[in-house]
Amino acid sequence: MAKNRNISMAVIRRLPKYNRCLKELLDKEIYRVSSKELSGILGFTASQIRQDLNNFGGFGQQGYGYNVEELYHEIQKILGLTKDYKAVVVGVGNLGQAIANHTNFEEHGFKILAMFDINPTLIGLQIRGTPVHDMRELGDYIKENNIEIGVITTPVQVAQGVADELVEAGIKAIWNFAPVDLKVPDNVVVEDVHLNESLFIMSYLIKEQELLKSLEDEENQK
Amino acid sequence: MAKNRNISMAVIRRLPKYNRCLKELLDKEIYRVSSKELSGILGFTASQIRQDLNNFGGFGQQGYGYNVEELYHEIQKILGLTKDYKAVVVGVGNLGQAIANHTNFEEHGFKILAMFDINPTLIGLQIRGTPVHDMRELGDYIKENNIEIGVITTPVQVAQGVADELVEAGIKAIWNFAPVDLKVPDNVVVEDVHLNESLFIMSYLIKEQELLKSLEDEENQK
Repeated sequence: MAKNRNISMAVIRRLPKYNRCLKELLDKEIYRVSSKELSGILGFTASQIRQDLNNFGGFGQQGYGYNVEELYHEIQKILGLTKDYKAVVVGVGNLGQAIANHTNFEEHGFKILAMFDINPTLIGLQIRGTPVHDMRELGDYIKENNIEIGVITTPVQVAQGVADELVEAGIKAIWNFAPVDLKVPDNVVVEDVHLNESLFIMSYLIKEQELLKSLEDEENQK
Repeated sequence: MAKNRNISMAVIRRLPKYNRCLKELLDKEIYRVSSKELSGILGFTASQIRQDLNNFGGFGQQGYGYNVEELYHEIQKILGLTKDYKAVVVGVGNLGQAIANHTNFEEHGFKILAMFDINPTLIGLQIRGTPVHDMRELGDYIKENNIEIGVITTPVQVAQGVADELVEAGIKAIWNFAPVDLKVPDNVVVEDVHLNESLFIMSYLIKEQELLKSLEDEENQK
């Protein structure tokens, strides 16, 4: 356990990719894999892969490669995916509903028990089995049901207020989809999904690609 | 222009944060800002900020700080946000609808002209003004309307097939929400939003936070 404490966040951010890749190998009943084969699938260099996986103990054996099952379970453990989490979604728009209905999250142990909104026409409804409660019940619900994760899919203007309520009620983590940097105490985890930022990066990459193409075209005309 | 060519991707990935922060300052009619003030808002160090912004030319002036408007427009230009993009969404589930209805994207110049699905009960509908077309029309639609961006919000099993069709039709970029690493030619941009990966990172951070807390509790009992 103590061994994991010094793993850099850069390595951690690559673990979900290993996790997915190993799961796919297991699904194909492949139980042994070399760093070179992993490199072919993941696009990281074999040396990077060996270095990353060395952080977690001696799984690779010279001339044998990695035991896919062992490695998969170890990464699941490191990522904290061997336990279940209880979550609520705040903000019942399209995005909130998309997240509540994403069966894949439940398969990974993230159970969304309820959604919350201020809109009276939504309150009391069940959306594909998930009840929509009044925002005013948020704090009590979290405390009574030991909810660990709050998902914020509200408009940006109210996101910090919602975060404050979640923190006040004792939430452990916030999965934030509102384009704002939430202020929360140090012991509360915030993981952001800033769709705008992703879109802007794509825009930059398109522009770069166009520039590259125009330079090549120029070159070809010479 | 040539100056931008060597900016690292790490700097580029921070630009959307600068962009958002500068926009907020402009909305508050703040036209001048120091790297120290930016540091307070963004959480990067002032020295990191000066280094980042130096990449784009001499905007900062000793004792004056940055001209917010100039810097904002320069970053908009670098990110390619001064032009409009035409996009289509493939896969009309909750997530696809959430993205098509996200008014914020349109404000930034990303116009979603149509959605595509194989479900006959959806084809022909207008969802908040955006028409749903038959998947079989995807290629022709892209070519006829000079669509630059394809958003993939389909189930993972069909995502690569959709990407192949988009590429075949001449798309410039794919915004991919399916949990798979798409294979596309080098000149096609792929920007992934892997929600699962974000969830797994959050799970890891919760686990780390719990570990930290239990260590502190032990310490306090001594």
